[in-house]
Amino acid sequence: MRLTLYTDLSLRLLMFLALDPPGQATIQTVADRYRVSRNHLMKVAQQLGQAGFIETVRGRGGGLRLRRPPAEITIGEVVRTTEEDFRMVACFGDEASCVLTPACRLRGALGEALAAYLGTLDRYTLADLTAAGPPMRLALGLPPAEAA
Amino acid sequence: MRLTLYTDLSLRLLMFLALDPPGQATIQTVADRYRVSRNHLMKVAQQLGQAGFIETVRGRGGGLRLRRPPAEITIGEVVRTTEEDFRMVACFGDEASCVLTPACRLRGALGEALAAYLGTLDRYTLADLTAAGPPMRLALGLPPAEAA
Repeated sequence: MRLTLYTDLSLRLLMFLALDPPGQATIQTVADRYRVSRNHLMKVAQQLGQAGFIETVRGRGGGLRLRRPPAEITIGEVVRTTEEDFRMVACFGDEASCVLTPACRLRGALGEALAAYLGTLDRYTLADLTAAGPPMRLALGLPPAEAA
Repeated sequence: MRLTLYTDLSLRLLMFLALDPPGQATIQTVADRYRVSRNHLMKVAQQLGQAGFIETVRGRGGGLRLRRPPAEITIGEVVRTTEEDFRMVACFGDEASCVLTPACRLRGALGEALAAYLGTLDRYTLADLTAAGPPMRLALGLPPAEAA
């Protein structure tokens, strides 16, 4: 059981942008700093844009930035958006291919477990994840934040 | 995010055996009733045997059976055994390939969510999942249970 690379990169891109509020980061910069594929990150950015998490500011001094404050973006919301497949086992699919499906309680138990998982992530925001600020900015090669 | 086919089949095999206490089921029978691959199920049975969940009784009247009562086998225990990879994102691996790892709180949040997921499954046993008995036996082509 693991999250997709797509979700992983989505969370990392959002964290980068939360740590870099000026909004001048490019896909290339983010890919370089994390040492991940620029092409993968491009797709991730497009889909996070479509989902309303980020936007691209064009022109001189432009770049990627969050559309909402980090404290208002929960990790549960991101994971629900980026993780396409929450079918835990065969009976979660449309096909309902298991003969036990009508009477079985496995689906209910797994559904409850998944709700507990996502419910935990709903309690964390992007602001929480990036609360350590300075060492994270340093690791990403970002300038120190301006005094708030 | 989904469980592997291996975990799916493991849970279904264990449920079958919980519903069929005489212990005369063969891999072939279970594969036929669920309409799943006999080869996959064979591997699943071997590994559940190694993990101490089931045993094979050889000879006439023999077959697969649970080594412990269904009420003593939790779903959390099964999933922890069968699901090999709980690395949620890159930083869960040995490689720790993300530059943010030392300061980031994502790992902690995902670890807490995973604990909530497995903790929920710890509250369900094989006996709970198969409590509906008769319709499940019917669906699997098993004879009605003897009067307890």
